[in-house]
Amino acid sequence: MSKAFPPALERLIKNLSRLPGIGEKTATRYALQILRWQEPTAQELAVSIAELHRKILLCSTCFAFSEQDPCPICSDSRRNRSILCVVEGPADLLSIESSNAFNGLYHVLHGALSPADGIGPAELRIDRLLNRLETQEVKELVLATSSTVSGEATAAYLAQCCKGFPVSVTRLACGIPMGMDVKYADQLTLKRALEARFSY
Amino acid sequence: MSKAFPPALERLIKNLSRLPGIGEKTATRYALQILRWQEPTAQELAVSIAELHRKILLCSTCFAFSEQDPCPICSDSRRNRSILCVVEGPADLLSIESSNAFNGLYHVLHGALSPADGIGPAELRIDRLLNRLETQEVKELVLATSSTVSGEATAAYLAQCCKGFPVSVTRLACGIPMGMDVKYADQLTLKRALEARFSY
Repeated sequence: MSKAFPPALERLIKNLSRLPGIGEKTATRYALQILRWQEPTAQELAVSIAELHRKILLCSTCFAFSEQDPCPICSDSRRNRSILCVVEGPADLLSIESSNAFNGLYHVLHGALSPADGIGPAELRIDRLLNRLETQEVKELVLATSSTVSGEATAAYLAQCCKGFPVSVTRLACGIPMGMDVKYADQLTLKRALEARFSY
Repeated sequence: MSKAFPPALERLIKNLSRLPGIGEKTATRYALQILRWQEPTAQELAVSIAELHRKILLCSTCFAFSEQDPCPICSDSRRNRSILCVVEGPADLLSIESSNAFNGLYHVLHGALSPADGIGPAELRIDRLLNRLETQEVKELVLATSSTVSGEATAAYLAQCCKGFPVSVTRLACGIPMGMDVKYADQLTLKRALEARFSY
């Protein structure tokens, strides 16, 4: 694009374009909006980005993002320590927490098996998960990886790995999402929902 | 949303949500991406936001964003000083510059007339525009406000204001965009394109 914008603005636009799914047009819109803000609002955004890496660490037990180690969930004595929920990433953990339907602990893999992208078992936190099964008294492992190709592959691999441990391995149910019209559900989801039908 | 994310991450998500069209889900995606970056990349983004207000000022002649006053366009001796292009905002100026079809100077209004939003002539840089017509030798004023309701109203108002000046007032042509199929053009655009048809 032309150099009609001053360098400080071009620099911000270039940096914002690094965010996922942001092209130059959107980055320009964001940059102009930041310039329209009062300066303290922009400074507050700048500071919150600047201190992010300094403040956030990974919990050494479950690998969730946290400002303390162990994280608030791992150190919460009211949580059920005999059930572990395995998720691909921190956003999955957040979704499950906000459902208020799970009171156990987590294990964050930070990815899913994807040989095409060079992500094998060694790139995930699988050895540390098996280590937790060995040293902690875990009765159930809930595989909550996504129902995508790589998520399913990861779940299948983990189920295989856990064969030697006295732990029951479960998987999130697959079916029609709540509020969804049956006519809009895809064939694979309908097939799974039919196979997993229950008596009413 | 739940408090499963550490405070530093929640703070960044809240700040990112202030950007136009960004909800909490998208802000979360951006924040997690920033956390996934190497720390210097995040610091570079933070610094470019932090210094934006400090570096960018408005050109006191044309009100474009600039790091110097007058701006590079106003101080460029190779530009035609007898023709002024009036635009609503800095992004419009950038678009016109990148077309390489205009070699005159600009005047940035920073908005368009919109009584419902409390934006009247006094909120735009209209008095300064008329001042330029008085003191500089301007032969043509190109009204390049958008072809929206407020853009058209602004153009009509400006044309009225310029009645007393020895300046020819023109408006960007309205018609079918290049590359667009006629069958997808809206009725109003087709009407304008037909009215403004030219001999081939």
